[in-house]
Amino acid sequence: MRIGLIISYDGTGYCGWQRQENGISVQEKIEDALRELTGEDITLTAAGRTDAGVHALAQTAHFDTESGIPAEKFSYAINTALPDDIRIKESFRARDDFHARYDVTRKTYVYNIWNDSHASAILRNYSFHVPRDLDLDAMEEAAEALKGEHDYTAFCAAGAQTKNFVRTVYDIDINTRGKLISFEYTGNGFLYNMVRILTGTLVYVGLGKLAPSDMGRIIESKDRTRAGVTVPPEGLFLKDVYYSYSPRYSGMQTSLGEF
Amino acid sequence: MRIGLIISYDGTGYCGWQRQENGISVQEKIEDALRELTGEDITLTAAGRTDAGVHALAQTAHFDTESGIPAEKFSYAINTALPDDIRIKESFRARDDFHARYDVTRKTYVYNIWNDSHASAILRNYSFHVPRDLDLDAMEEAAEALKGEHDYTAFCAAGAQTKNFVRTVYDIDINTRGKLISFEYTGNGFLYNMVRILTGTLVYVGLGKLAPSDMGRIIESKDRTRAGVTVPPEGLFLKDVYYSYSPRYSGMQTSLGEF
Repeated sequence: MRIGLIISYDGTGYCGWQRQENGISVQEKIEDALRELTGEDITLTAAGRTDAGVHALAQTAHFDTESGIPAEKFSYAINTALPDDIRIKESFRARDDFHARYDVTRKTYVYNIWNDSHASAILRNYSFHVPRDLDLDAMEEAAEALKGEHDYTAFCAAGAQTKNFVRTVYDIDINTRGKLISFEYTGNGFLYNMVRILTGTLVYVGLGKLAPSDMGRIIESKDRTRAGVTVPPEGLFLKDVYYSYSPRYSGMQTSLGEF
Repeated sequence: MRIGLIISYDGTGYCGWQRQENGISVQEKIEDALRELTGEDITLTAAGRTDAGVHALAQTAHFDTESGIPAEKFSYAINTALPDDIRIKESFRARDDFHARYDVTRKTYVYNIWNDSHASAILRNYSFHVPRDLDLDAMEEAAEALKGEHDYTAFCAAGAQTKNFVRTVYDIDINTRGKLISFEYTGNGFLYNMVRILTGTLVYVGLGKLAPSDMGRIIESKDRTRAGVTVPPEGLFLKDVYYSYSPRYSGMQTSLGEF
């Protein structure tokens, strides 16, 4: 039986989603819990990797099992065997052909900036501190220019294992709440570090180091050095993953995440 | 010169605000930093204590110093000597007669409930997990009944060093955002554990264990055993402290906090 999982985690203490030689990964923690529960050697397939320090509100994954544990009870069983910075939010019986990675049609990421003279004590691991004033109007204008279907080579970290750099960014929303500025990106896919580089570029616009009118030229240049810095991982959250069909064995939902 | 501080901290790793024999307190960390900076033996006076695990978005405190450090630079200097789960949000030259504890006229606390089947990985140290459905309308009605000027003995932990149990609660606002329910209390003062017991009582109402119409009788009973449980400290934030006058040497603000 194929089981789908919706997973949230605090990435602070992990080397990222994916199993690695050096460091404890979220994947490893959940696979260990599944082995303990089922006695099976289970490999999880997730919607995508997240880097060290990056968080998830609704990572999705699937696995196959012969276990008799009812699909919707897996979340409770796995959670008892997990540290409290990883929580399975929901488990469900998935369609037999559900694939958590191949069938993703959209993802939403959020990046948090803490914009105050001093960093935040509470959000220190969940935001990037920018002490200087940011021009919100300019950032909004630049965000508009960064949307669309483009070759985003200029916004991709060097060494990415990709041949096709064309992605579609449907939306970039900038929301403020007190000193917190949240950048929400929805797209059909994101290149390596793309969300962090887009955010760094928008921050440069907010600081006046780049102008909204520079965005088009930066995209066209396909030159990473023209875009802004890669902001650090702790501000980044994988917020939601979407599929073209409902991953549930029978169901109608296509959006799986919720804060 | 008297200096005023606005302080935020993540209470997770501390035994509370106040210096104690066993455990590291927030007060001790800041006083140590001040000694390092000024060479003086400085004692901080805060608006109030917070218990182990309780957080602050805007605790206030004052101290006197002969140091030549400009008042508004203290925040930067202290922060360099503090761990990153404590941040001085602002330092200012205070009126010579400003007293951070005696002159408080109002405080606002927020208590966070995470209302979902599973606990939150991200907010695990900043919320209390209630897995069962809560009746928001009933909680709203009960909150209304708990407001006002009352003898809140029924909502005070045993052993409190108080003679006068009369307090005025001006407002209890319940806000929901996704799975997060935040209870915001503003009053002229709160008895020991009062916010946590008020919240526990509202949760009992939400679960149907108490009715909104029970609130009046519980207040009148002055019997702690009639009210709800004391919910745990990690959901609690000291959000704001108000004074009848501006604490600033010259200034107009009377509210010091901001998320």
